[in-house]
Amino acid sequence: MKSKRFAKESKAVTTEIVLPNDTNTLGNLMGGRLLHLMDISAAISAHRHCKRIVVTASVNHVSFDKPIRLGDIITLEAQVSRAFTSSMEVYVDVWVEDQTTGERIKHNEAIYTFVAVDQLGNPISVPELIPETEQEKIRFDGALRRRQLSLILARKMKPEEATELKALFMGS
Amino acid sequence: MKSKRFAKESKAVTTEIVLPNDTNTLGNLMGGRLLHLMDISAAISAHRHCKRIVVTASVNHVSFDKPIRLGDIITLEAQVSRAFTSSMEVYVDVWVEDQTTGERIKHNEAIYTFVAVDQLGNPISVPELIPETEQEKIRFDGALRRRQLSLILARKMKPEEATELKALFMGS
Amino acid sequence: MKSKRFAKESKAVTTEIVLPNDTNTLGNLMGGRLLHLMDISAAISAHRHCKRIVVTASVNHVSFDKPIRLGDIITLEAQVSRAFTSSMEVYVDVWVEDQTTGERIKHNEAIYTFVAVDQLGNPISVPELIPETEQEKIRFDGALRRRQLSLILARKMKPEEATELKALFMGS
Amino acid sequence: MKSKRFAKESKAVTTEIVLPNDTNTLGNLMGGRLLHLMDISAAISAHRHCKRIVVTASVNHVSFDKPIRLGDIITLEAQVSRAFTSSMEVYVDVWVEDQTTGERIKHNEAIYTFVAVDQLGNPISVPELIPETEQEKIRFDGALRRRQLSLILARKMKPEEATELKALFMGS
Amino acid sequence: MKSKRFAKESKAVTTEIVLPNDTNTLGNLMGGRLLHLMDISAAISAHRHCKRIVVTASVNHVSFDKPIRLGDIITLEAQVSRAFTSSMEVYVDVWVEDQTTGERIKHNEAIYTFVAVDQLGNPISVPELIPETEQEKIRFDGALRRRQLSLILARKMKPEEATELKALFMGS
Amino acid sequence: MKSKRFAKESKAVTTEIVLPNDTNTLGNLMGGRLLHLMDISAAISAHRHCKRIVVTASVNHVSFDKPIRLGDIITLEAQVSRAFTSSMEVYVDVWVEDQTTGERIKHNEAIYTFVAVDQLGNPISVPELIPETEQEKIRFDGALRRRQLSLILARKMKPEEATELKALFMGS
Repeated sequence: MKSKRFAKESKAVTTEIVLPNDTNTLGNLMGGRLLHLMDISAAISAHRHCKRIVVTASVNHVSFDKPIRLGDIITLEAQVSRAFTSSMEVYVDVWVEDQTTGERIKHNEAIYTFVAVDQLGNPISVPELIPETEQEKIRFDGALRRRQLSLILARKMKPEEATELKALFMGS
Repeated sequence: MKSKRFAKESKAVTTEIVLPNDTNTLGNLMGGRLLHLMDISAAISAHRHCKRIVVTASVNHVSFDKPIRLGDIITLEAQVSRAFTSSMEVYVDVWVEDQTTGERIKHNEAIYTFVAVDQLGNPISVPELIPETEQEKIRFDGALRRRQLSLILARKMKPEEATELKALFMGS
Repeated sequence: MKSKRFAKESKAVTTEIVLPNDTNTLGNLMGGRLLHLMDISAAISAHRHCKRIVVTASVNHVSFDKPIRLGDIITLEAQVSRAFTSSMEVYVDVWVEDQTTGERIKHNEAIYTFVAVDQLGNPISVPELIPETEQEKIRFDGALRRRQLSLILARKMKPEEATELKALFMGS
Repeated sequence: MKSKRFAKESKAVTTEIVLPNDTNTLGNLMGGRLLHLMDISAAISAHRHCKRIVVTASVNHVSFDKPIRLGDIITLEAQVSRAFTSSMEVYVDVWVEDQTTGERIKHNEAIYTFVAVDQLGNPISVPELIPETEQEKIRFDGALRRRQLSLILARKMKPEEATELKALFMGS
Repeated sequence: MKSKRFAKESKAVTTEIVLPNDTNTLGNLMGGRLLHLMDISAAISAHRHCKRIVVTASVNHVSFDKPIRLGDIITLEAQVSRAFTSSMEVYVDVWVEDQTTGERIKHNEAIYTFVAVDQLGNPISVPELIPETEQEKIRFDGALRRRQLSLILARKMKPEEATELKALFMGS
Repeated sequence: MKSKRFAKESKAVTTEIVLPNDTNTLGNLMGGRLLHLMDISAAISAHRHCKRIVVTASVNHVSFDKPIRLGDIITLEAQVSRAFTSSMEVYVDVWVEDQTTGERIKHNEAIYTFVAVDQLGNPISVPELIPETEQEKIRFDGALRRRQLSLILARKMKPEEATELKALFMGS
């Protein structure tokens, strides 16, 4: 197994049409259905990075600002942003195309974390990730801060131990 | 429309069996599928509080610690924890039953936010929520803090304006 | 394994939203889809009583009087009404909520019978059921009469042997 | 619209392969899924008789004696057995093929009742049904007796008014 | 295993109602969904001929001329047209019923080829097929020509070796 | 509307994991399911070229040589190869990733034709397509020949009128 991989090697793109059963009473894509689609895209990306079975460990805060309509074409782009010992943080960017101009508008982004496991479900180590572009580096750096927040929210770390995050709130 | 409702009036319970298409290669429930089921339960609960069309506005950080297996029976209990002007925070507790003893074990919890809208999708006001039990009061109080965090993560509030949250990290 | 269990221990509640694929040309929930949902609820209830694999043995006469609409919220409440040697009779009550008042209206009831089986599919014995409330006792008592009718309809009992049922038709 | 139609004109045949999501923990077709498939077949048959929108009014007692396995090929044959003012009784016979000999074995039968409705859901009259074969005549004659039983079970007729049925239990 | 079987023994009929999730933005059955339904019907027919596991080897050119609407009743009739060493050509005829007259109109036809395989996926021989009716004989004869075309399109045969097909284009 | 568009502007990529319900008794992706997935990818590509509603007009011969397994990750790349008056030919290339090396292996290709229609389903004109790369030019040139074959197979053109195709078989 390679010990390091470039971020771009994990990129996974999926394009879907919103079908009737995906929608609510207003004819809009249901939030839960989008969370499901994003999870599958992110799992494919994490698998591409580590070539092992991956299981969802967590999903960060996701907000849904604008509705996506029945018949809309949505594109999900998932890419690993940072690899830890046996876990990987994956960014999913969701785009919706304007049906007449074709212009793609950024609609959502979500951050999932996956763990690589063996056939018995025990965690195993994954290759390091090498960021290259400016955006890849920003997301790589932010991953540490998000991990601290995630551990606090899961009550596995005390707020005062989260050095990076504390700085953010104290303005220093 | 009533102007106030008790928290317990919004409770929504759903019981499901994990079917083959819900599972990954290891035979475990996929995280994205659970996020979908939790979104539907939470939407029913939010609808019970406001009796209007509701749309998912956001989901907070969710972590998946233990696997749920094919054939497992899962129970989702959703209840509104606090109502704001036109939005409602909903807690979803997920339980899995031990197949031989029948003992229910807490598996997950998730926090979704919904907005009540009219037929055109514009936000409309919702009744206030009255917490009664100890747990209902704790979740009601925490909702304000979570809302600040949510606004920061969505970049609609600056960290230094989040008074409640700031106190948490500064230990004061 | 416990040799007796209270009726209420087997209660299973499920709440669902009627989605587009569940409906017919008139936009109403299809009868067959409701039969499917009731079967799953009843199976969960039977499993809760015996903690074993259960398979559907029969469903009694079910009638569908009023339509259930796309987007309606339906609640299915299943509870074992009587246990025999290896089979269990389960009642499923279906409620639909008025979308503006939230009032729950009884829509349907159905009676399913399940058999507990081992891994090879052979019947195994189940705990006795203890009814407590007035309704639980009425359903427990009626189960014997329904079982006779069921055996006649399946041509496993002759009408003249069905003592309880015969009395009903002869007015004695 | 024709005022009379032959029974055979309403025959509807459907062949299905049992897929993973249709099965329970033992790998057998779930009873509720079969009830769903039978309802769709019966609805097509009722539609063929009356050429109008049809809605499920009731399903008679159905028993499930032998398991149907994952990968099995099942054939559902539905045919109207008798037409009343606006309702139709439909028989569904279910056959399973032996995978090596190809022999078809009768597995189940079920009796559904449908009502023909207009676009507003109000009942409308349907053509009479003319039975031709021996079996069609037996099922046509039995339909009256089953209808009385159905009305009693739905509490719309008193047992003592069910002349045909009463005779059955009194042995006269 | 029988060494020969009549064409009619492999006939498989399936009737389906077009449901919301099967349709596109115009409310018409999607081409891909119909290809999926035809593949299942054809697989059942091929299985009935050889009584072995069958896998899709190819599908010939299929055209979709007239739209099929939401709520339409479609009938698929599949029948093996010719058997080769381990493969079978299957014709699928698709009919749509006029919803008021009940008249069946031929809508599509498609030609699939299946291969019989053992549990490891290796090809095994199948019985010969005996055509009886005029149409069965025409389709049996054409199968050889279509097989040549298929091999050319899959680049497994050179155009000049396809004697039957060459004659067609040279008008001799 | 633009009167010309580059081939690459219509590219649509979709990545999917093969789930239990997509597979046959051998645990392999069913041919019909793949035809369904390819149709959706191709429809998205055709839509991107013309920005109008598109409906499937035909699919060319498709062969399935190697099995795709449960849990495999498949990538579908669809791109318009040539535009005619109101129709577009779309190529779909299907790739499967080796689960341990990550190497992508070409698995299938299929050629679909779509027609652009207005809200009433009537054909409307589409922009011309400009091929740029070597492969785009080869596919663009071949499209005319395939169209003749398609018209012959649909019995809308006589073999002797298909000049391009005739040359192929006559070796001149």
